[in-house]
Amino acid sequence: MPSPPVLPSWNEGPVRSAIADFLQAVCDPDSPRHVPPAQRIAVFAHDGTLCSEFPLPAQALFVGARLAELARQWPDMVDREPFSAFLREDLPRVHGLGWRGIVKIGHVTHAGLPVEELARRVAGWLRDAHHPWLGRPVSRCAYQPQRELLQCLHAHGFSCYIVTAADTGFVRALAPLAYGLSPQHVVGTHARTKLELFSGGAELVGLAHGERINEREEKVHGIEAHIGLRPLLAFGNADRDLAMLRYTLGGAGPRLALLLHHDDGVREFAYDSGFSLNPLDEGLERAPEFGLRLVSMRDDWGAVFVPA
Amino acid sequence: MPSPPVLPSWNEGPVRSAIADFLQAVCDPDSPRHVPPAQRIAVFAHDGTLCSEFPLPAQALFVGARLAELARQWPDMVDREPFSAFLREDLPRVHGLGWRGIVKIGHVTHAGLPVEELARRVAGWLRDAHHPWLGRPVSRCAYQPQRELLQCLHAHGFSCYIVTAADTGFVRALAPLAYGLSPQHVVGTHARTKLELFSGGAELVGLAHGERINEREEKVHGIEAHIGLRPLLAFGNADRDLAMLRYTLGGAGPRLALLLHHDDGVREFAYDSGFSLNPLDEGLERAPEFGLRLVSMRDDWGAVFVPA
Repeated sequence: MPSPPVLPSWNEGPVRSAIADFLQAVCDPDSPRHVPPAQRIAVFAHDGTLCSEFPLPAQALFVGARLAELARQWPDMVDREPFSAFLREDLPRVHGLGWRGIVKIGHVTHAGLPVEELARRVAGWLRDAHHPWLGRPVSRCAYQPQRELLQCLHAHGFSCYIVTAADTGFVRALAPLAYGLSPQHVVGTHARTKLELFSGGAELVGLAHGERINEREEKVHGIEAHIGLRPLLAFGNADRDLAMLRYTLGGAGPRLALLLHHDDGVREFAYDSGFSLNPLDEGLERAPEFGLRLVSMRDDWGAVFVPA
Repeated sequence: MPSPPVLPSWNEGPVRSAIADFLQAVCDPDSPRHVPPAQRIAVFAHDGTLCSEFPLPAQALFVGARLAELARQWPDMVDREPFSAFLREDLPRVHGLGWRGIVKIGHVTHAGLPVEELARRVAGWLRDAHHPWLGRPVSRCAYQPQRELLQCLHAHGFSCYIVTAADTGFVRALAPLAYGLSPQHVVGTHARTKLELFSGGAELVGLAHGERINEREEKVHGIEAHIGLRPLLAFGNADRDLAMLRYTLGGAGPRLALLLHHDDGVREFAYDSGFSLNPLDEGLERAPEFGLRLVSMRDDWGAVFVPA
């Protein structure tokens, strides 16, 4: 018998029960639907699923900080598109760039840096960065119930992956600190790199453009390319995650697909279809048809953020 | 103090000592060059490094078997290029296709299969497949010293990955059986896939073409994309692996890059620069300059194959 899940920040209710039933079916060796540990894979979207993304996700804050740094050297950037949206702190125009635009600017601003240097810069930025709207360190904008769920899944023999449209390098630098996940458990939008071999050394240097944006069906291709096993559990929060959730449910045996609804305007923000960077619209409408379980931040979570 | 490595099939000598010294430096908490377990990454080439590849690697045998199956339905294939090289069992012509040609034929012959079905077929084939030149099951053509080294690295907190030019799906199906490595620890040449979503299900289906062939510098990009950490140890056997070996050595701290020389014509085969599918030529010449340690199958290995 597996031990019951320890999820103190999850309220009693149908979602918590569904997680407990799922873990029982997967992990109990006497369960007819038992799955061996090597096949226990769970995937999580990042922004809006594991941490706050509204009104700007953490990577956008980092890109903004990097652009501000560059603009001190090249003041003309302030009026140059698309950088001016960030440098003028014009939120609607930043939203207008879309996730794709923000990720692409990220690749441009980090081009020429060795990948290991980018990781050091992100880690350095995270030590001091403050979330301008939530009034807490960016590194503490992760959701406590999800940290507990990750820990619980690990305790039940799962391997957990982040599958995100954000830049792989950025999320890899954040993941050990915020979620206890190692870099190889991040599947994101990948900046292309160039190998520089020289006498006595070798560096991988970021290029100014990325691979395909890891969203929608690309998230499924990313899971196949990196993991090679269909997940048993998937957790998302936006239409961008629907393909991954449906792919997860499409396998045989016990499966669970969860979709977080940001409906808590008191403790966080209430938004869904109107958030242009990562809308949740089709998912809300078709969750029952697809077999997805909606998670209400307001009703299902007893706490929202990790302790500050 | 970490326990000394258990490598009974490795003969005493400079290579075995180098492995022991490396593990001591990485794992001893009192070592000035100690590396925490989360950063202990080891990468291995596959064909010719972990298992026999001469005169044809396992994937080529599988492709040949699949083509023979297809030719029973479509006998005209026997005289159609490039399939006829396999179907006429014309080894020089198969060699003439090169690794790229063989991997591409593999993608064509598996196109349209759900990726999970391909994994089942490879596993089914492996149950009965016999190596025509070695006189043992294909699943038992792995090298015993390498199995011991993988186990030893795992016991020392390493995560071990296969980084191969062969088809990812094929090596993933082989890896748990042959090396105890799970599918997510295989970085290979990836067949493109198409997601088919339908009411009540979802399938990922292989397409007839692949991503970039994972060889030379692409192996380094593959390591970065999948793992995101520079390996501490790399093991290869061909010029195709040199970029990965040099990238590994280019990092700070304790590093070890090993290059297997197939110089044992008694227990396996003696070959290097003349093997057109996977030549070792530049590596032999420049090993000292690059800091690579040559491993002699004849002198350094007390046993070659896993017990049949």
